[in-house]
Amino acid sequence: MRLLRYGPKGSEKPGLLDSEGKLRDLSSIICDITPEILGASHLAELALVVEDRLETLPVVSGNPRLGVPVKGIGKYLGVGLNYHDHSRAHDGNLPPEPIIFSKAISCLNGPNDDVMLPRDTQKPDWEAEMGVFIGKTARYVPVGEALDYVAGYTVVNDISDRGFQNISTQWDKGKGCDTFGPVGPWLVTPDEIPDPHNLDLWLELNGKVMQKSNTRHMIFSIAELISNISSYMTLEPGDLIATGTPLGVGNSFTPPVYLKPGDVLRLGVEKLGEQEQHVVPFR
Amino acid sequence: MRLLRYGPKGSEKPGLLDSEGKLRDLSSIICDITPEILGASHLAELALVVEDRLETLPVVSGNPRLGVPVKGIGKYLGVGLNYHDHSRAHDGNLPPEPIIFSKAISCLNGPNDDVMLPRDTQKPDWEAEMGVFIGKTARYVPVGEALDYVAGYTVVNDISDRGFQNISTQWDKGKGCDTFGPVGPWLVTPDEIPDPHNLDLWLELNGKVMQKSNTRHMIFSIAELISNISSYMTLEPGDLIATGTPLGVGNSFTPPVYLKPGDVLRLGVEKLGEQEQHVVPFR
Repeated sequence: MRLLRYGPKGSEKPGLLDSEGKLRDLSSIICDITPEILGASHLAELALVVEDRLETLPVVSGNPRLGVPVKGIGKYLGVGLNYHDHSRAHDGNLPPEPIIFSKAISCLNGPNDDVMLPRDTQKPDWEAEMGVFIGKTARYVPVGEALDYVAGYTVVNDISDRGFQNISTQWDKGKGCDTFGPVGPWLVTPDEIPDPHNLDLWLELNGKVMQKSNTRHMIFSIAELISNISSYMTLEPGDLIATGTPLGVGNSFTPPVYLKPGDVLRLGVEKLGEQEQHVVPFR
Repeated sequence: MRLLRYGPKGSEKPGLLDSEGKLRDLSSIICDITPEILGASHLAELALVVEDRLETLPVVSGNPRLGVPVKGIGKYLGVGLNYHDHSRAHDGNLPPEPIIFSKAISCLNGPNDDVMLPRDTQKPDWEAEMGVFIGKTARYVPVGEALDYVAGYTVVNDISDRGFQNISTQWDKGKGCDTFGPVGPWLVTPDEIPDPHNLDLWLELNGKVMQKSNTRHMIFSIAELISNISSYMTLEPGDLIATGTPLGVGNSFTPPVYLKPGDVLRLGVEKLGEQEQHVVPFR
């Protein structure tokens, strides 16, 4: 299933994209896409009901706004320097274990919503990534079982102001600005993604390809990330992990390229959909 | 008002401590203490109703467990090295602006609940702090107006595994472990705290005083912290800020002192109440 939430910000409805690419409303089956319904048994039940009643689910016409595909995300964690090429370009060393940071929940944004630069923005930058939604409570999960804890995959843009990010030792100020967390278009359930480590991902700035890689180049796999994080803190249903970005972020160029009002970002992950964001000034 | 939540974990009820120190149930007036009721007008309204009906509010007998005084905290942010003595002891330099980090929401714990050490804990440590609850949406707030955004004050213990904290550049792994976020006993509304920068705070480990300071020794005041953070990200009702800890954490001693099973922590902030935690092994 490709689950989504559509409609105006704050009053999204649950929906799905069917195999023909039609957006169908799910309001008659579930109230919303929340952490509670991300458990494997709930998702399996939902899939059965959807299969049974697909033709009765209203097709939504037009091109509605999409929201973050899950409502009520508790933690939004990111992984620093998790692609071989990006990490080598950074300082030549691979991190000995995943670098985990937080993106403030208040930064969450629909996949195609405008990205608003903060008033005193310094070096706003992009990071195309694969996102992973957790489906059940994970604590000390062995690597071999870790993918059982995944409710679905998505696209994220881990927008980061490099100036703010490095204003102190901790990155939170640059990672958590409002609108710096586009997520979506969909939560794609694992049955549709037989190998999450063989997906192309890419990002274009104003039509020019800036990032182009494949999830096979992650340093720590999704299973390793879940296992590692769960040895420090409990991962809960609805938690979101941004799994890291490949080479080609703005500050890796000479001279660096940073976002400015008027820029258009397009990015995507194979099978997981695409995002498009217009960069606007603070307002 | 001294607002609190009491009862078993996950099914707490709202309550308050009256001027005689009696715990009174608030369930007849509000369903729970949530971000929505932290706005100044809601709190003022609640205070009026409470004043009017105090004698009708049932007194809760016994000594019930206390929970985190607000349900539905969105962000739990901490401030690094925000006391003059602690910061000087660390590396001799005062931070040029607040160091902001995140504590995972999943670490939240009642003020007197056991602190459970992670399975592979390395250097678990304490940090007695004053906590600040946000009451209204804060974005680019001037310092002079920032205290208008405070819904109340509380006590927090920013428990931190120094080994995990320094396993990478980002502190999240050491700050966000389960049970590392005791908060409470109460949310004390600002009308009861005429000067939040003149409160003693202290911590005892097994009866021995380890931290003893006063909130006047903060480097960045509460108003400066709110103003600064709100220039990076929106602070929302229910967000919690741990304002930093003074000298006397375990890793500042020679040799360092870290927590171990069986230890008992007691800590408090003048007018804001006390916490007591028993340290237990992973289970």
